[in-house]
Parts: sequence; structure tokens; C-alpha cells
Amino acid sequence: MRRRKKKGADLKLLSYTDCVFHENVEEMAGKWHERFGNENPIHIEVGTGKGQFITTLAELNPDKNYIAMEIKEEVLLHAVYKAKEKGLTNILFIWGDVKMLPEYFDVAELARIYVNFCDPWPKNRWAKRRLTHSDFLNIYRRVLDENGEIHFKTDNEKLFEFSLNEIAENDWKLKNISLDLANSNYEENVTTEYEDKFMAQGMKIYRLEAAKRK
Amino acid sequence: MRRRKKKGADLKLLSYTDCVFHENVEEMAGKWHERFGNENPIHIEVGTGKGQFITTLAELNPDKNYIAMEIKEEVLLHAVYKAKEKGLTNILFIWGDVKMLPEYFDVAELARIYVNFCDPWPKNRWAKRRLTHSDFLNIYRRVLDENGEIHFKTDNEKLFEFSLNEIAENDWKLKNISLDLANSNYEENVTTEYEDKFMAQGMKIYRLEAAKRK
Repeated sequence: MRRRKKKGADLKLLSYTDCVFHENVEEMAGKWHERFGNENPIHIEVGTGKGQFITTLAELNPDKNYIAMEIKEEVLLHAVYKAKEKGLTNILFIWGDVKMLPEYFDVAELARIYVNFCDPWPKNRWAKRRLTHSDFLNIYRRVLDENGEIHFKTDNEKLFEFSLNEIAENDWKLKNISLDLANSNYEENVTTEYEDKFMAQGMKIYRLEAAKRK
Repeated sequence: MRRRKKKGADLKLLSYTDCVFHENVEEMAGKWHERFGNENPIHIEVGTGKGQFITTLAELNPDKNYIAMEIKEEVLLHAVYKAKEKGLTNILFIWGDVKMLPEYFDVAELARIYVNFCDPWPKNRWAKRRLTHSDFLNIYRRVLDENGEIHFKTDNEKLFEFSLNEIAENDWKLKNISLDLANSNYEENVTTEYEDKFMAQGMKIYRLEAAKRK
């Protein structure tokens, strides 16, 4: 049953040929601005889930382009539905793996990367899988432009601690660090589905921004 | 009664003419290595309290020089007693204010500054009094040598958040950040009197190191 449901999501997702990319995405490298039809900065969310965060941003900021990237087709389909409901024209979708970013984008093609509530991979031997590991930071550095930034949120204290250290160690410029987002001065927060649930439970949310050092 | 007790501490403290500095400390600027009788690096703790932390470090590291700085004479006296009990020869004491650091030390005369459990000054209008405010970071930068570091601990989440942001903003290189020292990999921790009390209560301790950027 589960397999059939997934397969249905595959086909449904791929039917949105106007906005969903899955095969031969590498052919788009260097052509994303052309595809959006403007030179507005491109912001990507890696691991976009059901898309509340990025579709809200796309709605709030028509002067920016958004790409929602997600490896699980069932959840990405929900993100596409949200974008369609809102009638958004400044968002595209990649059903794919964050490791492929350097194939899918040219050097400096992106202006911002959002990483929200990614898997904490708690065991030390899994550290390389965390989306704020040095290996990923190097990927992000490559595809970000010279003013490029990573915006990162998590509910996981250990992952946040790891991320602060990895980011500082790799010589990014940290800023706007929050150890408890609900009680911070940061007022522009747009939430994810997970975040709403965590905040309702009174859990702490951690957040940081990291800028490429010129 | 209280005044008499304080006054007693004054006199007692000043009687330790071999190791306690209070008046005309500025005359020592540039001469601290000479006073220690060696070229070992000098580490200072600002707001040293009763001195458990710095006297323990001085005992563990005979190849380093230590200065304990404290504005409250009653508590500093306890620190002096501890050093005397341990027979330490690599520690000196300043009864004075951290704001005076640039008068008391030459440029680059210090190798490390410890700031432990300082007053969080919670109201926004008090931000300038926090010992990790930009104004203090600029003072520390001046008296630290080119490899100089700040090592900071606190139990106060808001102060730690403020400090992370101030330090990153002022372009120091952050490292070894702990959001929960008791559950971290940092095994060399030497505790203060406050810290032992807080940890016994299960409170979280935050810690960071910040190196001068060359």
C-alpha cells in the first residue's frame, strides 16, 4: 500500500512540468535566472518539507525567487499544492538531494540557503550527514554569491551547538544568533510546520545566520 | 558593622604588598613579565571572586602567569588566602576595575582573558555594562597579544546569546562553543565557586572561546 501511495506521489509531482524539476536538473545550472525570467536573487530551502515556510516567503517577497528542494516526493507534493493555491509565480521545485547542489547550480548562482529543522543525526559517526557539516558548508559556499548567506533553524540543542562550531571553524561570519527564538528580538520569523508544533509545545527554537566572508 | 568589616578587608588585602596591587597600578604597565620574573604568557581573570578558578589554574599550569582582578576587596581577600595556602608563586592580584585594563597593561601584554559568570545586566539599557559588550571587547583586543583569546562562561542564556552576537559582530574567531558544558566534550573544565553551585542544581553552563583575528 505504502509503495503504491508513494508511486502515486511521484507521478503526480512530475505532472507539474511547469515548476517541478527532477531529471537532468544539472542542465539548469547557470540558467535559473533565465528560467525565472528576471535577475532577482534566488533563495533556496534545502529539505523544504510540506512547504509552509518557503511558500509564505515567496508570497511575502515577490521581488525574490525561491527554490524548494526536497528528497521526499510525498511531502514535496504538498509544497507544490500550497504554491498553486497561492498562485505563486516566483517559486520552483527540485525533487532531489542537497548533495547535488554543485551540479544543479553554477558557482555563485544563489543568494541565500535556508536550512530548517534538518535531521540532527545525533551519533558522532553520523556527523557528516548533518546539513551544517563542513562538507555541506563547502557546497553552500560554492553555489552562494559573494553576499550569500545561510539561515539555519533547529529545535535540537546539540545540532545547534555543532553548527555554531562548524560555521565558526569554517570562517563564515555569524550573526543574529538566537538561543530561544520565541523570546528573541527577531520579529520577521516565518515558521515551518514543525516549528509551529514545537513552539506550541513550548520547545526552544535556535536560529542563526552565517554570511560568506569576502 | 558592615563598613567596619569591609574596612578590615581593605587593610588586610593591602598588607599583602608582595602580590596585591591597588594604587598606581598603571605604573606596572609593560612591566608585568619583569615582575613575574619570566616571559611566560600572562592570563588574567576579570571579576575573579573568591579565586577557586584562577588559583586552580595557577596550580595546574606553573608555566603560565596569572593575574586575578576583582573590584570587591572582601572576596578578593579570599582569593589571596587560597593562593597563599597553595604556596603559588605564579599569581598576582589587582584590586581594581576591568575598565582600567588599558591603563594597567601595555598593548599586547596579555595572552588570555577569562570572564566567568559576570553580572548579566539583564535590562537593555544596561547592555554597555556587560563584560562582553563591544566596548569591553575593544579593551580586551588592545591588551591581548596577536594570539590572544577570551574564554567566557555563564549560566545566563540571554547573556550568552548577547555575547555570541557581540563577539561575532566584532569579528573575533569563535571556537569551542558549548551550550551545556556538563554534557559537552570539553574535559579540561576548571570550575568557579558559582559554577559548582549551579551545576549541583542542574543548571546549564554556557561556554565559548574567542580568538583575535590577525
